[in-house]
Amino acid sequence: MGLDVGVIGVGMIGQEHIRRLDGGPRGSRVVAVADADAERAATVAAQLPAAKALPSGEELIVSDAVDAVVVTSWGPTHEPYVLACIAAGKPVFCEKPLATTQEACRRIVDAEVAAGRRLVQVGFNRRYDPAHRALKLAVDGGAIGAPLLAHCAHRNASVPAHYTRDMSIADTAIHEIDELRWLFGQEIVAAQVFTPRRSSRGGELQDPLLVLFELADGVLADVEVSVNVHYGYEIRCEVSGETGTVELADSAPVRLRREGAVAGLVPADWRERFALSYDVELREWVDTVVAGSPPQGPGAWDGYAAQVVSDAALQSLHSGGRVAVELPARPELYR
Amino acid sequence: MGLDVGVIGVGMIGQEHIRRLDGGPRGSRVVAVADADAERAATVAAQLPAAKALPSGEELIVSDAVDAVVVTSWGPTHEPYVLACIAAGKPVFCEKPLATTQEACRRIVDAEVAAGRRLVQVGFNRRYDPAHRALKLAVDGGAIGAPLLAHCAHRNASVPAHYTRDMSIADTAIHEIDELRWLFGQEIVAAQVFTPRRSSRGGELQDPLLVLFELADGVLADVEVSVNVHYGYEIRCEVSGETGTVELADSAPVRLRREGAVAGLVPADWRERFALSYDVELREWVDTVVAGSPPQGPGAWDGYAAQVVSDAALQSLHSGGRVAVELPARPELYR
Amino acid sequence: MGLDVGVIGVGMIGQEHIRRLDGGPRGSRVVAVADADAERAATVAAQLPAAKALPSGEELIVSDAVDAVVVTSWGPTHEPYVLACIAAGKPVFCEKPLATTQEACRRIVDAEVAAGRRLVQVGFNRRYDPAHRALKLAVDGGAIGAPLLAHCAHRNASVPAHYTRDMSIADTAIHEIDELRWLFGQEIVAAQVFTPRRSSRGGELQDPLLVLFELADGVLADVEVSVNVHYGYEIRCEVSGETGTVELADSAPVRLRREGAVAGLVPADWRERFALSYDVELREWVDTVVAGSPPQGPGAWDGYAAQVVSDAALQSLHSGGRVAVELPARPELYR
Amino acid sequence: MGLDVGVIGVGMIGQEHIRRLDGGPRGSRVVAVADADAERAATVAAQLPAAKALPSGEELIVSDAVDAVVVTSWGPTHEPYVLACIAAGKPVFCEKPLATTQEACRRIVDAEVAAGRRLVQVGFNRRYDPAHRALKLAVDGGAIGAPLLAHCAHRNASVPAHYTRDMSIADTAIHEIDELRWLFGQEIVAAQVFTPRRSSRGGELQDPLLVLFELADGVLADVEVSVNVHYGYEIRCEVSGETGTVELADSAPVRLRREGAVAGLVPADWRERFALSYDVELREWVDTVVAGSPPQGPGAWDGYAAQVVSDAALQSLHSGGRVAVELPARPELYR
Repeated sequence: MGLDVGVIGVGMIGQEHIRRLDGGPRGSRVVAVADADAERAATVAAQLPAAKALPSGEELIVSDAVDAVVVTSWGPTHEPYVLACIAAGKPVFCEKPLATTQEACRRIVDAEVAAGRRLVQVGFNRRYDPAHRALKLAVDGGAIGAPLLAHCAHRNASVPAHYTRDMSIADTAIHEIDELRWLFGQEIVAAQVFTPRRSSRGGELQDPLLVLFELADGVLADVEVSVNVHYGYEIRCEVSGETGTVELADSAPVRLRREGAVAGLVPADWRERFALSYDVELREWVDTVVAGSPPQGPGAWDGYAAQVVSDAALQSLHSGGRVAVELPARPELYR
Repeated sequence: MGLDVGVIGVGMIGQEHIRRLDGGPRGSRVVAVADADAERAATVAAQLPAAKALPSGEELIVSDAVDAVVVTSWGPTHEPYVLACIAAGKPVFCEKPLATTQEACRRIVDAEVAAGRRLVQVGFNRRYDPAHRALKLAVDGGAIGAPLLAHCAHRNASVPAHYTRDMSIADTAIHEIDELRWLFGQEIVAAQVFTPRRSSRGGELQDPLLVLFELADGVLADVEVSVNVHYGYEIRCEVSGETGTVELADSAPVRLRREGAVAGLVPADWRERFALSYDVELREWVDTVVAGSPPQGPGAWDGYAAQVVSDAALQSLHSGGRVAVELPARPELYR
Repeated sequence: MGLDVGVIGVGMIGQEHIRRLDGGPRGSRVVAVADADAERAATVAAQLPAAKALPSGEELIVSDAVDAVVVTSWGPTHEPYVLACIAAGKPVFCEKPLATTQEACRRIVDAEVAAGRRLVQVGFNRRYDPAHRALKLAVDGGAIGAPLLAHCAHRNASVPAHYTRDMSIADTAIHEIDELRWLFGQEIVAAQVFTPRRSSRGGELQDPLLVLFELADGVLADVEVSVNVHYGYEIRCEVSGETGTVELADSAPVRLRREGAVAGLVPADWRERFALSYDVELREWVDTVVAGSPPQGPGAWDGYAAQVVSDAALQSLHSGGRVAVELPARPELYR
Repeated sequence: MGLDVGVIGVGMIGQEHIRRLDGGPRGSRVVAVADADAERAATVAAQLPAAKALPSGEELIVSDAVDAVVVTSWGPTHEPYVLACIAAGKPVFCEKPLATTQEACRRIVDAEVAAGRRLVQVGFNRRYDPAHRALKLAVDGGAIGAPLLAHCAHRNASVPAHYTRDMSIADTAIHEIDELRWLFGQEIVAAQVFTPRRSSRGGELQDPLLVLFELADGVLADVEVSVNVHYGYEIRCEVSGETGTVELADSAPVRLRREGAVAGLVPADWRERFALSYDVELREWVDTVVAGSPPQGPGAWDGYAAQVVSDAALQSLHSGGRVAVELPARPELYR
């Protein structure tokens, strides 16, 4: 027992994961960190009982002290780090996106297939959220009959100034892309993006978007992507089936009666909303790795497929119309 | 068809009822008004197409132009007006309380019994609220098994400066007294009042109160009476039965997501909360009177019984301890 | 005071309206009925205190005994009856649809314009539902900032065997068409229909549909139309604005805790869900007619515009793709 | 890092805690177990990677292999085990009750005071439930003004045949006793038990009970204790303050629309409802022990005070009337 983890990229999300992994389940601890900002790596390492700052992610990956790797660095660096982990035969948990292009994702899939065993897990945390799991349980359990439609909303209170229209798809709706594939256990076959009236809160940014996804069996999912909604952070999803529907309930633990209203508080941001899902995600990942099993969570294929769908949606956003998703056959390794 | 109504007392609630009755169902109209303030009576009459201001309630009651009477005057005047209506053989709708003492209520009951027919309806409007009716329907329909407990709250945003501790029982909790009798179809046999920590918002007023009522079959109901609760006006009730519970749902028709919360608005006051119940109450009363039937709503006996329970609760408030309710046998007329 | 109404078509909805109008507000009563089934007309008339059965709708319309007309006959007969009312100068309340083709609706608009005054009201009852009014109040009052998106669902428990795919638009989604025009105070400029996976509960019927409407200012509204949803009748609508959202709350008046769940009952059908809205609709119509005012509710133009949008949606359903709505300029009479 | 725990009593709750502690946070693991049923102890130990079954709790406590002790044995054995832990100077987590009589609890307090440092934590898990923490946060943060009243319900779907009326207080309401002390940061000064109509589901058992607790500052809390409520397991609490109220929200993560209702599932039992609270409770306990700090959770004083209040409530249950709680001064160690 005991899992010695190396973390590449110790910005905000990296530090959050470190908090969960150091002194975490099954004796997991963080033994090495690396960051493009060496000073930051040193500072973070200094606060941990057992961690050393290493000069590069590459060195971290091959270090004998490191049993498994968490990649929380800048998106464009994901591909080389994950490929290096596969080469080193080490389990790797890579924050989403797996890589920033579908070609890069495909190279990871190919490398893993060539290596002949699954080592990669992607940080699609929705799958670990208790409410989303209850949603899937209801759908899978037949509580609403065969699913026919899904209505989703992904709302951020605000985004930084550098946020672009494309990021609404590639960084934000990517969560719904994975969620829908997971929820319905099948691939998305087409995407179409609509641009409603623009919110004045986002300046020149085209916000919100309305995205329509088609699943392989015909289920249609409409997704509102709003990134300046001001009132808080909220994820909504209702699945309509043949005999009923199931939706995420409000997540507020208490109801306040005050100032003329009965109210539940809305989370301020994704950290607040999904804190528990990250706990579960990393605990289950550690369990898997310690047990020597392949990752049970979203793998390289899921990261790749999500990227291909995201690219289709981006093409629709740029050119209009329905764009079919062209996904090659799923390799044997991922069946 | 057509019911010509006289209204005694044209203050706020009187004017509200006039609005419902003039040009109302079955051709009801207000043909006469009277008020201690003759000028106010004249002003109100002048705004109605068919109404005259009469110099006194007594004259209104005996006027040939008046088919039925609504009494919305000051509480202490209810007894003589209602007795005069009984003497005149005219249907009368009297706002709660039927009279301000149990002795006065008893005289009304006795007069009605002597007259040999039911003419009096008391304005306990809870019985006409769609949500309270749904509550009773669930209880009566066996949805929760035999009822065992009830948990109620009666909350006012604020009360005027002249409001007293006794009014929390006699004017406010009186609604729950009638509601519990109606909901469970039996009498209240004891009352006990507790005085929690005092709200600083009511100055010297002992507010809130917690009142415990025992029903004949042993059901216990705890009632929070809070009259300075600031956040709005709210009536809550949950009935716990052997196999489940039923409670009033939040009444807000829409849910707002804004400023960090998912919220439903709470009514500002009883007028807003119970507007529809008054509509139904008066429409059903008009229907009954036009049809020549005795009142289907709460009658003189209900007004009397509520007053007896209220007096028991007041005695507990003043002297402490559990006070048994001493209610004589129900006359044949009210069975 | 007193409004003497004639009712053409005394099937289910006709009889419901009669119940509201006979002995209704301001002394309204039903004085004449007509029906293609003369026997049914006679039977209904016999149950009313003041009504005669007339041999035809045409005769009813010109009868001196009739002040105003309610048309609740079969859709294809609406046009001639409404035109006859306009010719006779009598106020007419016509159940939706105003007429079954946009050309027929246009002829009604033209006739009214030629007559120079508004006599026609169309039975789009959503506008009278308290919850929908609270929704509009929140939107108009700025509670959510400028509206950007709307998410709607129109769900029927089941439909009769003769129900067709086109009826999902022309008979069912027509309510959302009017609702969206009213809610946002502007025209719909395009429609697009998507066909998700088909429910096995409707046999060969293409059910559900997903319809996308574009408002003049760019607001996009997605509407799920499901007519075999089995679990009950439910209308959902959420409007997303720049700073928040507002949605219809669950309509259940009580919450039941039983058998492992906390539940609110869903209405069985539209009669249960919208009973109160019909009360308000007809009461306000009577008030308007008695006051000699033009109808305050949806008029001939609204009936026409809704039909034009419905036709565009039908075209999209048949041919695919986005179909622009071609609506002529609104005549002066309707501004 | 790493905490080696011994567990005394490996029945259901013991095994649940073992699951959380073995391979748990900060490298915690279970190294020893003991049970009155030696065979059961052996079976449980055999399934754990690092645990030995020891012949007695006493030997486990003094074993050098054991850093800290969890007591989940039968209630009457708690006192000697906890006293032995204090004597051995080892941190001990004892499931509630701390001991089965207030005298026994007092002996533990006295022993801890004599030892001069806090070693004991009691398993009052409500304090670790996220919803209860949000409730306390709202109260403490002033969201509802000064608290005045609390309305609670503790409902079990069913209880075993050996369950007695006294257990409704001593085993069930004991959770509310601790919760109220913690929520309001003060002692309970009186208790009064009322016996409503008896549920037929519990046979001869007097169920439900209604208990009224008075806090030192006058806050009154009414607690429904129902142990055969059939529909599920549910904990309810609303605190009424001067300007508003706060209550536990429904805990269901999703809402199902099916079969005529919109419903959230209710937990089947306390294990389902409070799973997360046990996770947090034990994780925080491990953190505290590893850090060498005194327990941050409920300590021996809390276990003792709860028992004194429970005894007062039992006296009221047996003899009727309000029973004042006689609690000696709080020793310096617990201030």
